[in-house]
Amino acid sequence: MAIEIPYKIYLEESEMPKAWYNLRADMKVKPAPLLDPKTHKPATLDDLSAVFCRELAQQELNETDAYIEIPEEIRNFYKMYRPSPLVRAYCLEKKLGTPAKIYYKFEGNNTSGSHKLNSAIAQAYYAKKQGLKGVTTETGAGQWGTALSMACSYFDLDCRVFMVKVSYEQKPFRREVMRTYGASVTPSPSETTEIGKKILAAHPGTGGSLGCAVSEAVECAVSNEGYRYVLGSVLNQVLLHQSVIGLETKTALEKYGIKADVIIGCAGGGSNLGGLISPFVGEQLRGEANYKFIAVEPASCPSLTRGKYAYDYADTGMICPLAKMYTIGADYIPAPNHAGGLRYHGMNTTLSELHAQGILEAVSYQQTDVFAAAEEFARIEGILPAPESSHAIRAAIDEAMKCKETGEEKTIVFGLTGTGYFDLAGYKNYNDGKLQNYIPTDEELAQSLAKLPNIG
Amino acid sequence: MAIEIPYKIYLEESEMPKAWYNLRADMKVKPAPLLDPKTHKPATLDDLSAVFCRELAQQELNETDAYIEIPEEIRNFYKMYRPSPLVRAYCLEKKLGTPAKIYYKFEGNNTSGSHKLNSAIAQAYYAKKQGLKGVTTETGAGQWGTALSMACSYFDLDCRVFMVKVSYEQKPFRREVMRTYGASVTPSPSETTEIGKKILAAHPGTGGSLGCAVSEAVECAVSNEGYRYVLGSVLNQVLLHQSVIGLETKTALEKYGIKADVIIGCAGGGSNLGGLISPFVGEQLRGEANYKFIAVEPASCPSLTRGKYAYDYADTGMICPLAKMYTIGADYIPAPNHAGGLRYHGMNTTLSELHAQGILEAVSYQQTDVFAAAEEFARIEGILPAPESSHAIRAAIDEAMKCKETGEEKTIVFGLTGTGYFDLAGYKNYNDGKLQNYIPTDEELAQSLAKLPNIG
Repeated sequence: MAIEIPYKIYLEESEMPKAWYNLRADMKVKPAPLLDPKTHKPATLDDLSAVFCRELAQQELNETDAYIEIPEEIRNFYKMYRPSPLVRAYCLEKKLGTPAKIYYKFEGNNTSGSHKLNSAIAQAYYAKKQGLKGVTTETGAGQWGTALSMACSYFDLDCRVFMVKVSYEQKPFRREVMRTYGASVTPSPSETTEIGKKILAAHPGTGGSLGCAVSEAVECAVSNEGYRYVLGSVLNQVLLHQSVIGLETKTALEKYGIKADVIIGCAGGGSNLGGLISPFVGEQLRGEANYKFIAVEPASCPSLTRGKYAYDYADTGMICPLAKMYTIGADYIPAPNHAGGLRYHGMNTTLSELHAQGILEAVSYQQTDVFAAAEEFARIEGILPAPESSHAIRAAIDEAMKCKETGEEKTIVFGLTGTGYFDLAGYKNYNDGKLQNYIPTDEELAQSLAKLPNIG
Repeated sequence: MAIEIPYKIYLEESEMPKAWYNLRADMKVKPAPLLDPKTHKPATLDDLSAVFCRELAQQELNETDAYIEIPEEIRNFYKMYRPSPLVRAYCLEKKLGTPAKIYYKFEGNNTSGSHKLNSAIAQAYYAKKQGLKGVTTETGAGQWGTALSMACSYFDLDCRVFMVKVSYEQKPFRREVMRTYGASVTPSPSETTEIGKKILAAHPGTGGSLGCAVSEAVECAVSNEGYRYVLGSVLNQVLLHQSVIGLETKTALEKYGIKADVIIGCAGGGSNLGGLISPFVGEQLRGEANYKFIAVEPASCPSLTRGKYAYDYADTGMICPLAKMYTIGADYIPAPNHAGGLRYHGMNTTLSELHAQGILEAVSYQQTDVFAAAEEFARIEGILPAPESSHAIRAAIDEAMKCKETGEEKTIVFGLTGTGYFDLAGYKNYNDGKLQNYIPTDEELAQSLAKLPNIG
């Protein structure tokens, strides 16, 4: 008798992961090391510990331990909003008329609105454990800043968020959530840092940028006793924490005897995609299974699909370590796409290496096509998705429609990273027919890539 | 061995209710009947069917069937976002240092952001079944309008929402969610109805009111072939649909052998409170258990705590049936409290009768105290609550603190009806120290109550 698959698969608490999975341990060819921005030599634990919490720096450098235990305090916090459901998209399948079976791992059922909380709580925990007073970070769209505010509030840590000024002004409600969780939110550039003052002097009235906010957050961390800088994506420590998404997904599928064929995630810095696919990639690298992995990025910020695999700066201020990654250039300022969380010039080093090895495929979409998928999904499945997550929806629908043509009953799993409650300005533009697409010209990309540092 | 209670109790799909519970069937003294607004005689099925869908009108009048089967189509929709979790507030208990055990039934994990979807989908289903083209309704804060838009989108029904003009302008994002679900949203008063035109002529530039929006929605329904009017609270049909909340809660508690002592809900029109407590009240009326039931209302709109139990108009336009209820007068315009969902002058007739019989207690709070509880809860339990829901949080915390004094290990269950993502203007006022309290004076209430119709 066929097992009936419920609409939503919820694991028991006892089935939740007790350790994160560190994919790099199973990779024969590892991602290239981070380099010190001044010496261009591999960054050491001491280099990284000056900016990051020491235990997080260790995780960043750890390429040998496949599993790292999740501390009990973090597991208890996870229990407040996890396990997240693995949802069978019965209604979407029916509407599409596809023989494909579609599942999505929904990470939006928490107040931060996304998967970002999975790493925020881990980073706050290690900061607290190290006896720090607080942490600093930057935020653009605000999901990461919100998640970190929640985590810091839980561990009674000071949280200083530098929010890109234009977002600070455009998204007062995002700011207000962070304040409600006790964080201080400073519009960047600000007069509170040296680099902020310099930028303000050079560009009076500027709306700021993510690169500038990073620089201010790092300066604030290193110049204040008892503070460190934390980051919500791009780093391998973040992928490690986010592996909780993939581990839960894998357990849920196995519980019902389901074998995925295609696994899809949206990709900005790579935190969600990496977390979702890590355990499945590991399985494949060990020769135990075979999957099709798809990264979905905005056509306006096409690091995997049109970028170069090379060392580049992680931030425009060039103060963070250099990383070998697919990049469109740290200087390139992506167009104001509504998927703010995907507006990063580079890609996590592990995912970049997987793409270079041909294990991870990549596609890109224009935002009008993404919002069309978002609205269709909202109406059929009842969840208003974040524009970022909707990139994965778009690709999942397209894969399912291919199955309709071929008659294949593939099982498609995608990551639904978050909700779009704070992205309604984007939906309004879409509903009003005013949404524009931005695609960098070949010339623009070539100009930007010509400025890459000459390393390796 | 003591059973370990998980942080979140999720029922299996197979444990979800297959029938709604109709509390009135178990009440010896029934709530007083609705009266026709012109004749003052009990409203008949035909009277009600002119405005409401026929099957919903039947449910409104049904005082005999204790259980009414939930149609399979509705149960399938419920599976997309239900069962909702019953959460053990371990972190809140620890923070308060109380021996009480606190649970909350969280209804906010769906895109409408609240429990309103439970009735919206039922009402849309019956409208579709009747072969209608569409439904009309009014919305103030927007939760009900959003829920109805989602439900109508699912059943491919036209949805016309009259949104109080001042909310329409202040909450463009709420409006945008409804548009994304395909609803038409008209600021009320509007030029699209006769009554709207009259009001605009008499009060040019008015921001509108809920009473006016109801009148426009009813006019739109009765003057358009194939349309009916639907309502998100106050009516007994709504309590019936919302009983899914209480039924799930009861099953979850019983599954773990937990006996509740105190059950708390916020109360505006009564949809959530009635749904949550119905099955427990029924148990008590049958002599099988004993509970303390608490309704929590805003001090600015104190129908149960300071109103009169009498027949009153349900709307300011006096076109809907009269109801015997605790009321502060249909003419009374409650102050602009941030808990917009609780700004209703009356209370559902069943809950009113329970209060009159001494079964349902009531308390009221000022909004500064409510927001203090909301912020404390958000920081500790990780969920940003709606201001409406936060009334129940405030009362639950106060009950738990009483237990701390007495040492009693009471089990407290409260309804957390929704999230506050669209209420951040209220949080901002609170964070800025600008939140004001409003309490009607005795004179104001007496003046309003003097205008009640002279019936029975």
